[in-house]
Amino acid sequence: MAVYTDVQDEALRAYLADYDLGELVAFRGIAEGVENSNYALKTTKGDWILTLYEKRVEPAELPYFLGLMRHLAGRGLACPEPVAGRDGQALRELAGRPAAICTFLPGVWPRRVRPEHCAPLGTALAELHLAGMDFAGSRPNTLGPAGWRPLLEACRDSGDEVRPGLIAELDATLAGILAQWPAPGTLPVGQIHADLFPDNVFFLDGPQGRPRVSGIIDFYFACSDLLAYDVAVCLNAWCFEPDFSFNATKARAVLAAYVARRPMSAQERAALPVLCRGAAIRFLLTRLFDWTHTPPGALVTRKDPLDYLRRLRFFAGIEGDSALGL
Amino acid sequence: MAVYTDVQDEALRAYLADYDLGELVAFRGIAEGVENSNYALKTTKGDWILTLYEKRVEPAELPYFLGLMRHLAGRGLACPEPVAGRDGQALRELAGRPAAICTFLPGVWPRRVRPEHCAPLGTALAELHLAGMDFAGSRPNTLGPAGWRPLLEACRDSGDEVRPGLIAELDATLAGILAQWPAPGTLPVGQIHADLFPDNVFFLDGPQGRPRVSGIIDFYFACSDLLAYDVAVCLNAWCFEPDFSFNATKARAVLAAYVARRPMSAQERAALPVLCRGAAIRFLLTRLFDWTHTPPGALVTRKDPLDYLRRLRFFAGIEGDSALGL
Repeated sequence: MAVYTDVQDEALRAYLADYDLGELVAFRGIAEGVENSNYALKTTKGDWILTLYEKRVEPAELPYFLGLMRHLAGRGLACPEPVAGRDGQALRELAGRPAAICTFLPGVWPRRVRPEHCAPLGTALAELHLAGMDFAGSRPNTLGPAGWRPLLEACRDSGDEVRPGLIAELDATLAGILAQWPAPGTLPVGQIHADLFPDNVFFLDGPQGRPRVSGIIDFYFACSDLLAYDVAVCLNAWCFEPDFSFNATKARAVLAAYVARRPMSAQERAALPVLCRGAAIRFLLTRLFDWTHTPPGALVTRKDPLDYLRRLRFFAGIEGDSALGL
Repeated sequence: MAVYTDVQDEALRAYLADYDLGELVAFRGIAEGVENSNYALKTTKGDWILTLYEKRVEPAELPYFLGLMRHLAGRGLACPEPVAGRDGQALRELAGRPAAICTFLPGVWPRRVRPEHCAPLGTALAELHLAGMDFAGSRPNTLGPAGWRPLLEACRDSGDEVRPGLIAELDATLAGILAQWPAPGTLPVGQIHADLFPDNVFFLDGPQGRPRVSGIIDFYFACSDLLAYDVAVCLNAWCFEPDFSFNATKARAVLAAYVARRPMSAQERAALPVLCRGAAIRFLLTRLFDWTHTPPGALVTRKDPLDYLRRLRFFAGIEGDSALGL
């Protein structure tokens, strides 16, 4: 379910009158996405995506997200580019919500990740990081290490209902992660996507039928943090099989393509195992929070937090970066 | 939520290879629709809708639905036209489901019905009925009068939990409707849409900015039944305000435009009040069934059956057709 706010057709027409996008041709809700309401919008000038920002997005942070997308698109990255209205403003209001129109990106996200997706992903991630280097904005990672302990506290009372002993295991694991976390200034920092899951990356067939990245979407967790942490998110999101076994071929492909475009320092490589544990506990904790705080009848798909316990335990056994495929 | 079955990208490519639709450009789930999984599909040859038929659609009935759409589109009606594969077949299989690709229709469905929508709706409904006259197929209305008593029985044990006394009221009302229902052979019969709600009718701006119908979709309740019953469904679906007051201006606009294209007999006009009661109880009963048979945690939006009790009670007080706006 990805349409939370419905848009009256008169309101839509009035909204579009503020743009130079031609006449309205079609308007359909998009099923993908869980945080915001997304509509596929077709006008006589082309295809666009209209997004209404829902409660989980902080309005004050929207200028950062939209500014980053504009910056990255201007650097040639295939990401949604916010479209300004006639007054030059991209961030507007529709149906009582902050709203924006962005360019439509072609492609299909991979329902099942194949090894051939992984090198293009690694290249695209490195290009995203490089393109963001001269972006002037910044945003703290609200779901980074400083946010994990409060999330765990919020799950303390009911977390063991999901699995007996879960909270004690997470207490110990989180303490270990935070103790090993890279000190400020030791690793390169920049604008990271922070949520680069397969459903946020579109592919099309390139030469010889090999997949190429045609679009990276959903920058609404983007923030300023360790670049290598974004790599760790991808290793979590792209390199585990449905049975939770770690596919080192995929990991090697992501990493090799990434470092070919943006070389990683020895410190970054050495930090990868703890960054992977951090990324695993981040998704585990937000899923656990949603799981324990969502009323049973609510119209959202709750994702199983224990999927990330499996990943967390795998990464807990890794010491060097060699086992990750580098 | 309108994507129940996810489609692997390799399976999609293999499926598209059976068509002459060019190369895949984009593929997004559509949020609208509750019975089937719908995807917006873009290829180098244009925009299409891919539908996977889910459990509530009987596979044996799909040739009727697709054949009717092909027939109506061939007669010039703006409805989805099934696209045949290279072997001439439109009904195929994808991801273990029956599946078909249809043409994409422009337009926006009206979130709030205005009087200006009603005349174009009436005209389009009459054109649908006329275009269907020479269609060779037929399908009984499984949610018609013969189906209402079984539906009510299936709700008997838990229906009063929705509202005390509801089942007794429906028993009495249904008996009255069935006693007054037009005898076979007295009213014209043809192919009807049977579910022509606002979200199944797309509009675009026509001359002078007046809305014109650009598409009628979702023929998966279509059947062979009284043409005037389809009018009664529209009076239920288009002519009540959010406070459940009946808007006679809208009803008059629907009816006047309809009869201008397909004149109704005196018997049809006289039958409209009981047909309206029938349409109201049909949607009340299917909603009540879903309400009482859907587990509380299920990921579907349950629609309030009592919305149709309000309509049913309004139509119960109508004797002639004059109060309906004719």
